[in-house]
Amino acid sequence: MSQKHVGWAPPTENDVDNIGGQTSASSVESCPPYTLRDEVTPADRDAVRQLVERTGFFRSDEVEIAVELVDERLARGPASGYYFVFTELGDALAGYACYGPTACTESSFDLYWIAVDPKLQGRGLGRQLMSEVEARVRGAGGTRIYVDTSGRPQYQPTRTFYERNGFHCEAVLRDFYAPGDDRVIYVKCLCE
Amino acid sequence: MSQKHVGWAPPTENDVDNIGGQTSASSVESCPPYTLRDEVTPADRDAVRQLVERTGFFRSDEVEIAVELVDERLARGPASGYYFVFTELGDALAGYACYGPTACTESSFDLYWIAVDPKLQGRGLGRQLMSEVEARVRGAGGTRIYVDTSGRPQYQPTRTFYERNGFHCEAVLRDFYAPGDDRVIYVKCLCE
Repeated sequence: MSQKHVGWAPPTENDVDNIGGQTSASSVESCPPYTLRDEVTPADRDAVRQLVERTGFFRSDEVEIAVELVDERLARGPASGYYFVFTELGDALAGYACYGPTACTESSFDLYWIAVDPKLQGRGLGRQLMSEVEARVRGAGGTRIYVDTSGRPQYQPTRTFYERNGFHCEAVLRDFYAPGDDRVIYVKCLCE
Repeated sequence: MSQKHVGWAPPTENDVDNIGGQTSASSVESCPPYTLRDEVTPADRDAVRQLVERTGFFRSDEVEIAVELVDERLARGPASGYYFVFTELGDALAGYACYGPTACTESSFDLYWIAVDPKLQGRGLGRQLMSEVEARVRGAGGTRIYVDTSGRPQYQPTRTFYERNGFHCEAVLRDFYAPGDDRVIYVKCLCE
């Protein structure tokens, strides 16, 4: 056990590129400069901070959590329970996702974070990252992926993104984050 | 942010003393040797491990989590986000609860752990611990306390305990812990 419960942070996703269906993941494949990477390096600390800040979507305490997850992974390796997928455009971080097995469960995983550089949204990078996370979770024997977000109106694109990626809303905890700010719990079953 | 997400562990409660209404918290008051304590000392590490093991209710990985929360508190103090209430009979640990503020929420708290020595159950110690946690959460400005448990039949006493202490079931995540083992999320609103 070494994971921090950032599942309670709303791991919002500002990559609304899938909304409206402008592009699809295949458009990424036609952009060779995009590369995927699993390893975490010390340089990712600043890169993740800058990317998450650039989205303009996260509060400062949420940004700190994003960075802490990188720190935890750097310090403890896989034992941290945090796994990453980075997508890069040349040397620049274009987007990333952080996920890991859920403590005390047989095969549930949490998606803690997923974010795409706002300048690179609309190219299917969010969907691609989600697909990569799913493949890795399946490979690790995972059967369910959970992700939380807020029920506030400004998170509608986030919720739509999850729904378009096969997640369904399983529970709503009223006023969890604050009065009027519900926690919405999504799940995707990989075993179906 | 320094909390581990043990909220996902089923913080089961084997103190079923409130079931059947045999005794009430007032019986504790008539037992002067019971004392309450908030501070965490290095000796609590072993005491918590032994108590949690004695309940016979927790898996070994769950026991390790209970100990890790003590370690985290000892290492980081209040910054760990873990707060404790211990009830003692003389020098011996009779029961304890661990709780803390929920990250990224305005005033929600999690009850991570609550356990009573099986030899001392039926004396209202569980209810007293819950009451002490509530008082401390209120004092810290908290408005909601969340606690998770399993939906399996053997956790019915746990669920009954929460319900008798003013919690209500707000959500069920199907097959969360394992196939056939749901996560049941209880909440108690302190603002009502």
